[in-house]
Amino acid sequence: RRSHMVVSFTDPVVSMDLLRAVLQPSFNDDIMAVFRKYQQFLDKAAENVKENVGEDVQTDLLITDTCRNLLEQAKQMFPEAETKLARPGVEASMKRSRQTDDDST
Amino acid sequence: RRSHMVVSFTDPVVSMDLLRAVLQPSFNDDIMAVFRKYQQFLDKAAENVKENVGEDVQTDLLITDTCRNLLEQAKQMFPEAETKLARPGVEASMKRSRQTDDDST
Repeated sequence: RRSHMVVSFTDPVVSMDLLRAVLQPSFNDDIMAVFRKYQQFLDKAAENVKENVGEDVQTDLLITDTCRNLLEQAKQMFPEAETKLARPGVEASMKRSRQTDDDST
Repeated sequence: RRSHMVVSFTDPVVSMDLLRAVLQPSFNDDIMAVFRKYQQFLDKAAENVKENVGEDVQTDLLITDTCRNLLEQAKQMFPEAETKLARPGVEASMKRSRQTDDDST
């Protein structure tokens, strides 16, 4: 069991995810507090949709989906590793492949 | 152009996404404020990882990924529509589509 923990802690992704798991409950509380700020707008919009579209609209599902989408879009503030890695990495490999291209032409 | 807008506003998903787009910048600001609370923990953890693993660890990428994962996991507070719809909604629409199938054949 000891060696398993050592393996885990030397994997950067695992280490960071352990921290993430520790922070998550507190983070979630903070996120819910943010959502409460917007609750009235979401409620009102969903009610309007229901009025305009009909009784079969499930306002709670509309609101839940919107909250998910807000979080999903917020992730764009933190671009994925591949995109960021692309700058030095891809450039280097592009130069390399261009040189190869030049050599071949 | 007018009719296009009418079409948009009668689609519940589009209506809610318009609201989402309007709220997103302010929501993002609030989310960033939350992240600042946790910045010191993320910085420290990433620095520790770098010390333990080696200089080739890109701490900014580790932190960015962790932020994305925090947001991704926070989405679990808002279960997906299908899961919730599955209880009464899907059953009803499945029955309906089966009836339609029966009618057309």
